[in-house]
Amino acid sequence: MMLTIINSIVLAIAAQVTAPAKDEVPSPPEIANAAPAADWRAIAPEDLLVMDLAGGKARRVVIQLLPAPFSQGWVGNIRKLAAAHWWDGTSVNRVQDNYVVQWGDASEKKPLPAGLATVSQDDYLTRVPYGSFASARNALGPGNSVSSYSGFYRGFPVQVEAIRSPALSWPVHCYGMVGVGRNMPPDTGTGAELYVVIGQAPKHLDSNIALVGRVVEGIEHLSSLPRGTGNLGFYETAGERVPITRVRLASELPAAEQPRFEYLDTEGPSFARYADARANRRDAFFIRPAGGSDVCNVPVPTRRAK
Amino acid sequence: MMLTIINSIVLAIAAQVTAPAKDEVPSPPEIANAAPAADWRAIAPEDLLVMDLAGGKARRVVIQLLPAPFSQGWVGNIRKLAAAHWWDGTSVNRVQDNYVVQWGDASEKKPLPAGLATVSQDDYLTRVPYGSFASARNALGPGNSVSSYSGFYRGFPVQVEAIRSPALSWPVHCYGMVGVGRNMPPDTGTGAELYVVIGQAPKHLDSNIALVGRVVEGIEHLSSLPRGTGNLGFYETAGERVPITRVRLASELPAAEQPRFEYLDTEGPSFARYADARANRRDAFFIRPAGGSDVCNVPVPTRRAK
Repeated sequence: MMLTIINSIVLAIAAQVTAPAKDEVPSPPEIANAAPAADWRAIAPEDLLVMDLAGGKARRVVIQLLPAPFSQGWVGNIRKLAAAHWWDGTSVNRVQDNYVVQWGDASEKKPLPAGLATVSQDDYLTRVPYGSFASARNALGPGNSVSSYSGFYRGFPVQVEAIRSPALSWPVHCYGMVGVGRNMPPDTGTGAELYVVIGQAPKHLDSNIALVGRVVEGIEHLSSLPRGTGNLGFYETAGERVPITRVRLASELPAAEQPRFEYLDTEGPSFARYADARANRRDAFFIRPAGGSDVCNVPVPTRRAK
Repeated sequence: MMLTIINSIVLAIAAQVTAPAKDEVPSPPEIANAAPAADWRAIAPEDLLVMDLAGGKARRVVIQLLPAPFSQGWVGNIRKLAAAHWWDGTSVNRVQDNYVVQWGDASEKKPLPAGLATVSQDDYLTRVPYGSFASARNALGPGNSVSSYSGFYRGFPVQVEAIRSPALSWPVHCYGMVGVGRNMPPDTGTGAELYVVIGQAPKHLDSNIALVGRVVEGIEHLSSLPRGTGNLGFYETAGERVPITRVRLASELPAAEQPRFEYLDTEGPSFARYADARANRRDAFFIRPAGGSDVCNVPVPTRRAK
């Protein structure tokens, strides 16, 4: 027995426990922590969006933008909005329990910077040659098939429909994923109005609305905000809104201030073991492995780079 | 066009919008709201647990206990703990983002009332005659089959494995479900230490830990609490804990104070239409129905009874 946690409260619901597990069966975080440096991928500063909320304590949220080939029209707009410092002085305006936190310009009157793209609804789906994302298919279990499966691509959860070529793929609304608010179709949003998922994966939104990234640090500063009491969780008074001090691409910050992050390579062997362990818990707390997992119950490990 | 919402922010991500949708295609909440009284089921006061948190504003959480045949050993213990006023003066001690909020006796020294049952691990699974829960099987989509499916039973999300008789069934860890903290197996917990799910359904816990109910009102008082900074999200200082003023079965309160709730009958026609609409959004905001839904993305409608 290598159990080193002796406080029984701490043992209760030990799903993400970091202590050694019995019989040398590592838990998912132990697998990630033991992964060699070669299995981690650096996130470029150009792909990190840093949002600072006003308030007494430092409240920083860091978002990794989606890589090509996904959502690049909206991601390009977001880079322009950040470069224009457009979000500075805007606010978090909506917090709906088990759904989303949303931010942007509450007045809806702030002029947008020039040159933003109008993106087509077609771009919710990405066309890729058959087999391009075959490595994304894994042992997540029931619900996956040869032609329709969920998995991971360059660190992000995706769905793949490969029943014809080109295959179709799109990112998935897991907890922490960031998307683009929009009006009624055919509007697709500019990227100025953003939201993050803070509850059960709302997969009915997949391929109906653009996803552009995910929070890699600081989501608790959004998910623990008071829920709005208005329709859809909007705050009913200006005083409830949480001011946003500034939003920058990390690459725009002075080099010494740039946060550095990395994610566990979703095409590497450590991630494969981690995903299998999430789907089939064999560490000491568990008595029956589940035999599969929803893609959203396999959060991709990320960490500050050393 | 019957669209009456004109604020574009309000339209953004209108998944739970309550305004009329185009072409008279009702949204899921519209279907629930239009359901006849015969499709709603009253929740008995004996099955409601009322928890009041300390603080300036009234913070009340109401939990519906699981019906037979599920988890009745632990549910019986919880009735005894409430009758003994055992939780009065205990606290919320743990808030882990995208996982659980947990409460109980932080000292771990408070004596338990006499007569609590020690429940077997076998009781995580319920044996039922083949076909007992066939009505729970529905059109949720991929991942369901004739012999292994998720669905609903008397208002709760369940999994059914009917590959042999007796079939096996167990409740599922969806957002808002309440479970019993425990130590390492074969311990199964008493029911004194409880948690509620506040993130993506942690289905790896299903049939590994007892579920005993779900929150029907006030979950925001738990889900918006500051996240704990200790291991597993435990609060590191006593001052961070949220005191629990009292916990009572609603049936123990004076009649005038008893909260009255009802849920949309999960075996009735309105719920069938509601679940289909959750799995296949056809109202105005959506352009592609998903073709299926995880059982945890079909929250069972509940409301205050008139």
